[in-house]
Amino acid sequence: MRARIAPKIKLQKHIADRLLLAVDLAGTFVFAVGGAMAGIRSHLDVFGVMVVSFASAAGGGIIRDLLIGAVPPASIRDRRYALAAFAGGAVVFFLHRYVGEIPYPMMIGFDAAGLALVAVSGAAKALDHKIDPFMSVLLGAISGSGGGTIRDVLLTHVPAILRVDVYAVAALAGAGVMVAGIQRGLPRNVMMGVGFAVCFLLRVVSVWRHWNLPTVSGP
Amino acid sequence: MRARIAPKIKLQKHIADRLLLAVDLAGTFVFAVGGAMAGIRSHLDVFGVMVVSFASAAGGGIIRDLLIGAVPPASIRDRRYALAAFAGGAVVFFLHRYVGEIPYPMMIGFDAAGLALVAVSGAAKALDHKIDPFMSVLLGAISGSGGGTIRDVLLTHVPAILRVDVYAVAALAGAGVMVAGIQRGLPRNVMMGVGFAVCFLLRVVSVWRHWNLPTVSGP
Amino acid sequence: MRARIAPKIKLQKHIADRLLLAVDLAGTFVFAVGGAMAGIRSHLDVFGVMVVSFASAAGGGIIRDLLIGAVPPASIRDRRYALAAFAGGAVVFFLHRYVGEIPYPMMIGFDAAGLALVAVSGAAKALDHKIDPFMSVLLGAISGSGGGTIRDVLLTHVPAILRVDVYAVAALAGAGVMVAGIQRGLPRNVMMGVGFAVCFLLRVVSVWRHWNLPTVSGP
Repeated sequence: MRARIAPKIKLQKHIADRLLLAVDLAGTFVFAVGGAMAGIRSHLDVFGVMVVSFASAAGGGIIRDLLIGAVPPASIRDRRYALAAFAGGAVVFFLHRYVGEIPYPMMIGFDAAGLALVAVSGAAKALDHKIDPFMSVLLGAISGSGGGTIRDVLLTHVPAILRVDVYAVAALAGAGVMVAGIQRGLPRNVMMGVGFAVCFLLRVVSVWRHWNLPTVSGP
Repeated sequence: MRARIAPKIKLQKHIADRLLLAVDLAGTFVFAVGGAMAGIRSHLDVFGVMVVSFASAAGGGIIRDLLIGAVPPASIRDRRYALAAFAGGAVVFFLHRYVGEIPYPMMIGFDAAGLALVAVSGAAKALDHKIDPFMSVLLGAISGSGGGTIRDVLLTHVPAILRVDVYAVAALAGAGVMVAGIQRGLPRNVMMGVGFAVCFLLRVVSVWRHWNLPTVSGP
Repeated sequence: MRARIAPKIKLQKHIADRLLLAVDLAGTFVFAVGGAMAGIRSHLDVFGVMVVSFASAAGGGIIRDLLIGAVPPASIRDRRYALAAFAGGAVVFFLHRYVGEIPYPMMIGFDAAGLALVAVSGAAKALDHKIDPFMSVLLGAISGSGGGTIRDVLLTHVPAILRVDVYAVAALAGAGVMVAGIQRGLPRNVMMGVGFAVCFLLRVVSVWRHWNLPTVSGP
């Protein structure tokens, strides 16, 4: 069967792989930015900020890759993930001196973009590894929220995934829409875009609407 | 050698596999119930409760499977684990509105049953993967207490495994009795029952006896 | 190519493997001592101390082995790691009754030695598994600080890796010097010694110099 793959399909596979890598690296950078912002708000020094950036950025993808059996994980095998994470951390660390305190909406926006990118690419990679579609949607949400959860655990906060109503839910919705579309034969790249939009918008709108609601917090 | 396995042994293997799966799914459900109770006590909303249920229920087994090299872990490969976890979480979330606050002894009983089920099935699965018997006992304890530890870390509590005297010890005792019996040629299914009883009783009795002792807490 | 390995090279490989094992076991013991000290300072009982000892001692190596795809991890496959960890925990638990409170500089010294041993052996093992040199240095730091990070998370402290200026940096420096030397063809065992010395001295000296500096803490 493998030998019969037509060159055109091979090329499409190659483009899909490169798109997945690009999305994954973009998500890594954006999550590193969010992690670095949280680190600076917790008054960490430059090294602590870099650690939190890397953990936030690579954590979700590493958990996903360990769970689907793709070892060594992409962000260990390929140094570009670590470089993207450190670049995100460094940009925040050196820019924030000029721009003062980073506004909260910007943090939310960056985090929502990272969540959407990583949830979508995480679910797509799980499907590629022949994981059940239902579990692939969960893996999208786990990879989307895993890095932020590690970040919050390291900073001894109750993780955002537990505090915030529509965080995991946004990731599930985005990954779910994408997986459902792919299962129905719709084009993969289009569905990745749709899944990204669903997750990002749902997350941002939910923050806007719930702005003044009391947050649910631990005891 | 494989071709010489008699049908009877094959059938016994099949029954043993199904028993291990049933025990594992029951442990998953019960741990999800315990996780959901802890989530409700921490005033999480329905989504947070589901996250804590899944993490509590699947966490120990996932750690065990990663450590013994059984990837993707059973609870990622087989969607029934996630469904059992979400069922446990949903039962608690929707029942607790009717029964009011869940009494502490019931939480302890559920948690002890989950600990015993998962410790026993965790050690048995490690033996199946040719892990050293001593380490299999430890892996039983790790899989029994891993989910609860993840739950406590997410809720920023000092984990029960460190606060509570006879938690890890009960899991070690149950798994240890089972592994010792199997190593001496006693029937596997019987030893799983004995191991379960040892762990469950040791845990429940220890809570009863130590009821009024000051808890050991972090600084 | 494999069949052409000369007996002398085979013997050197054997010696290198045994050295790596010895360094790894020594690091395990020393990290267990540090973990047990932290456990006693947090007023844990003997079982909690053993759990923290094992988690501190084996945690970094287990994370490293999962990330480089060496499963089951060494400390699960080989019971000597667990025994070294429990020995370290037991020595501290039973000695500290005689020596009273363990002085802080001794804790720092032990922890620095563990950090150096595990950072160096972690980076060397990553190189052996054909991991990119840059990522191998990071993996040395991750395996050096992973156990302590798990310890701090379990005790609900903000991890030392975030609080302390030159912790991860010392591990990176030691692993980096070692990997750079090996890449340039210098003898592996010599470079492991140099890497150990760089990491240990950098860590100890930094604690001495920064003794009275305010610690960077979470919010």
